[in-house]
Amino acid sequence: MANPDVVIIGAGILGLATAYHIKRMRPRDEVLVVDMLSGPGQGNTAKSAAMFRSFFSSKTNLTLADTSIEFYKHVQEEYNLDFKMRWVGYLFLLNENDYKRNKEILEEMDRRGLKYVVYDSDYLSKNLNLNTKVSEDEEARLMGLLDVDVGLFVPKAGSIDVDLVVKFYEREFLKLGGKAQYNTKVKRILIEPRNPLGIPGEPYVWQDARASGVETDKGVIKAGKVVVAAGAWVSSLLDPLGVDCHVKPKKRQIFSVKADKEELKKLLWCKAFNPEGCMPFIILPKPHIYIKPAVEEEAFWLGCADEFGRAFKLEDEPLPEENFYKYGIYQVVVKYFPQFEGCSPYSSWAGLYAINTIDEQPIVFEENDIIVVSGASGSGVMKADALGRIAAALYAEEEYAELYGGVKFKVSDLGIKERKVEPERLVL
Amino acid sequence: MANPDVVIIGAGILGLATAYHIKRMRPRDEVLVVDMLSGPGQGNTAKSAAMFRSFFSSKTNLTLADTSIEFYKHVQEEYNLDFKMRWVGYLFLLNENDYKRNKEILEEMDRRGLKYVVYDSDYLSKNLNLNTKVSEDEEARLMGLLDVDVGLFVPKAGSIDVDLVVKFYEREFLKLGGKAQYNTKVKRILIEPRNPLGIPGEPYVWQDARASGVETDKGVIKAGKVVVAAGAWVSSLLDPLGVDCHVKPKKRQIFSVKADKEELKKLLWCKAFNPEGCMPFIILPKPHIYIKPAVEEEAFWLGCADEFGRAFKLEDEPLPEENFYKYGIYQVVVKYFPQFEGCSPYSSWAGLYAINTIDEQPIVFEENDIIVVSGASGSGVMKADALGRIAAALYAEEEYAELYGGVKFKVSDLGIKERKVEPERLVL
Repeated sequence: MANPDVVIIGAGILGLATAYHIKRMRPRDEVLVVDMLSGPGQGNTAKSAAMFRSFFSSKTNLTLADTSIEFYKHVQEEYNLDFKMRWVGYLFLLNENDYKRNKEILEEMDRRGLKYVVYDSDYLSKNLNLNTKVSEDEEARLMGLLDVDVGLFVPKAGSIDVDLVVKFYEREFLKLGGKAQYNTKVKRILIEPRNPLGIPGEPYVWQDARASGVETDKGVIKAGKVVVAAGAWVSSLLDPLGVDCHVKPKKRQIFSVKADKEELKKLLWCKAFNPEGCMPFIILPKPHIYIKPAVEEEAFWLGCADEFGRAFKLEDEPLPEENFYKYGIYQVVVKYFPQFEGCSPYSSWAGLYAINTIDEQPIVFEENDIIVVSGASGSGVMKADALGRIAAALYAEEEYAELYGGVKFKVSDLGIKERKVEPERLVL
Repeated sequence: MANPDVVIIGAGILGLATAYHIKRMRPRDEVLVVDMLSGPGQGNTAKSAAMFRSFFSSKTNLTLADTSIEFYKHVQEEYNLDFKMRWVGYLFLLNENDYKRNKEILEEMDRRGLKYVVYDSDYLSKNLNLNTKVSEDEEARLMGLLDVDVGLFVPKAGSIDVDLVVKFYEREFLKLGGKAQYNTKVKRILIEPRNPLGIPGEPYVWQDARASGVETDKGVIKAGKVVVAAGAWVSSLLDPLGVDCHVKPKKRQIFSVKADKEELKKLLWCKAFNPEGCMPFIILPKPHIYIKPAVEEEAFWLGCADEFGRAFKLEDEPLPEENFYKYGIYQVVVKYFPQFEGCSPYSSWAGLYAINTIDEQPIVFEENDIIVVSGASGSGVMKADALGRIAAALYAEEEYAELYGGVKFKVSDLGIKERKVEPERLVL
């Protein structure tokens, strides 16, 4: 593909969802995806906790996630595929104050038809062998840990095998005639004047300029538009052009602990919450450590989004930190779940979130023939289909994107200049 | 000063204005300013075009600039100082379309008492020997240059000797008992738990953390609060902590051309606009190249804020680019002002703007005992006094800052979470 109409940087879930939807909307356009890795979804997409939920107070959040989740469900049926969606649900363990602070919003969400169940601490401690009264432990008190008074269970939520979703997008994109070129690292986005005059060194300051392609380690690719879906690398590609995408990379770590003791197996296969017959995805009170049931490997994935003190930093090979587990996550988890006493991770990894530092919701905008789709801030997997459609609509110069299920979404709402995202009021 | 109450990073105009106002509001607090350079205002403050104007549609912009300018005027009288304020005025040279687009806003500003004068192209061409009809030149047309139909002259505007202002703030700050330590480079901001438990490697994720001082190349300085007024360096200090200040550095260049020809002298000493008896600060139509009368050196300063294509990039020694003048600025200037034919700069330099990429207005916020004052995006000099007062009010835990002349300003309006800045609608 010599001069494609559009080159998409990044074959992660956002890049491939965008590629597929562009090709679907504009079948005659030549669409090329490039990625520095050797296959689809091998970057931070593969390192995701791979959870989804359709439960947000913000209409923006909810629409992006819900239509994407519904699309994944639909694809499973339509194409007879299995994305290994497990409807384990999210269980937020809350202190009374956290619950009270959110009560009004929850009631409003209830009226909007968003389902949840509230469990009391007895139910939780009985079914999960959870220590709800951590404040009775002097050390836990010193650590500032909070008692669990309420469990908020969200049923429309669970885990998904992201790799299968990425491969679905890639396959369908290729079927439609799209091309993907791997092992190709983009060094920079090229710019040139809209009306080239052939002067060496142009564009100069009096010329209107635009992106005209990319320079890769395998050569130059000229294109009509450049889509930047490079996740954590987005700012490193856009800063040299003086375009701010308001996205910064931040390391996130996951530690996998085997359910190799009887009490841990009992926790993992807890039947009290969902039809999957395993424990839900559990989020502890502040600092919000999570525990995911990784049923395929009979294990738990533990993680925590640390904010202040965790650098915005681009790393090619971010590493998980032993002490982050040992003195951080483990110390908290074991106070609530004594079952984890003495457990070490048998595997761990780290990836980079692309954090939108304005409002932690995704960003899709166009500037000088560069389309940016990024900033999902850790919810890229659960919002990918919607974001792919919105980026494709921007490419197709449509004012509204049609999300799965016929939902209309105004493209400029996720932009920078006319940004209109509803803030998330449910903060658990 | 072993453990000051507050350490301020940066002895530029924002750092020293903040230092002075903190010391004024809290005379008993120990305030220490550190800077990597050898004296006050030697970084990007010294590289500024040093212009000011009290003419904005945005109330935020106007209040910050106007109260600062009024304060500088007051200081000159009160302390019998001369900041070399020259009321040369700003003259925006506008194409008819630009003028029409702004007409309504200008009329509104007129009703608010903001003074300006509109000149027609005859007046401009006669008094400035300006070529208003550039479109008659084929090359200029090819370059996309626009005819000048209207001159919008703003009288409450001019130039100032920034170095004298910075030195004023430093002297008064030191008089009040403040301390400044130069040749001291901050390597990083230190963080520690609010309730230290003495565990190696703390703070951990379950601990509340705060900034506790700075590590410099001359040793550690512990402090109650850390004020970051480091201009272009702000993000390099805050990114490692995972705090986004929404400020990025961008190079700006100035080229100084001697008025060594008769026609250039005539232009420089043009009497038709201001009581200073020199030409005003002139801004050409898009791409908005400016020409400043640098009367002390009988020269013109030429510059241009290039956007798309100009990298966000931190450099210790940014250099002016010969081609930026030769093929960029010069080519445009000479079409409007043939007097500059053949002129080369006898001096040039480059500095870094601290650009707030959200709205190009300044940012003042506090997070975990770090106070950030930055992002003035090139208008730091003309807004410094107000910004110093707002940062000092934040330090003193006041809800409102009292700007010069008794104007109240809500501190959180310049913050990130409850930001409330009026967008600038006058875009010339």
